[in-house]
Amino acid sequence: MRFKELFQRNEETSASAAKERLKIILSHERTLRGQPEFLPRLQQDILDVVKRYVAVSNDQVRVQMQESDRLSILEINVTFPEKHLSS
Amino acid sequence: MRFKELFQRNEETSASAAKERLKIILSHERTLRGQPEFLPRLQQDILDVVKRYVAVSNDQVRVQMQESDRLSILEINVTFPEKHLSS
Repeated sequence: MRFKELFQRNEETSASAAKERLKIILSHERTLRGQPEFLPRLQQDILDVVKRYVAVSNDQVRVQMQESDRLSILEINVTFPEKHLSS
Repeated sequence: MRFKELFQRNEETSASAAKERLKIILSHERTLRGQPEFLPRLQQDILDVVKRYVAVSNDQVRVQMQESDRLSILEINVTFPEKHLSS
């Protein structure tokens, strides 16, 4: 499956780094132009949720946002050493 | 960028359906095998967050999970008519 291949490439190249990686991608597709966009607000709420599971500081989080007329994509990358895993 | 192209294909094929689409992909890459997996729990929490922004019912949500030794990928698809958009 396409997504799996995409992520698996990551796995192979970083296996030696002893890091956990969490990637969250949100895409919002609208049929009307100029609709209010909620992804930027959603971003902080999702980060708050992630922090319930993993102890991460802000500098371990990278956020990228891409927008076009009817499509917004938010990508959140979190990298942390294994020992920081909570639970 | 690769992700953008991936999602944009969706946009083109569904433009006539007058639906909003939200896709959430979570991937968790571990360096150790057999570690506890938190994606299924994270999934529910993220859906709860999304419901603060968009009025969706459970039957509008499709979830797919793929797991290998050190990589888990969870894909959440939400489709809803535009009028269900809250603010």
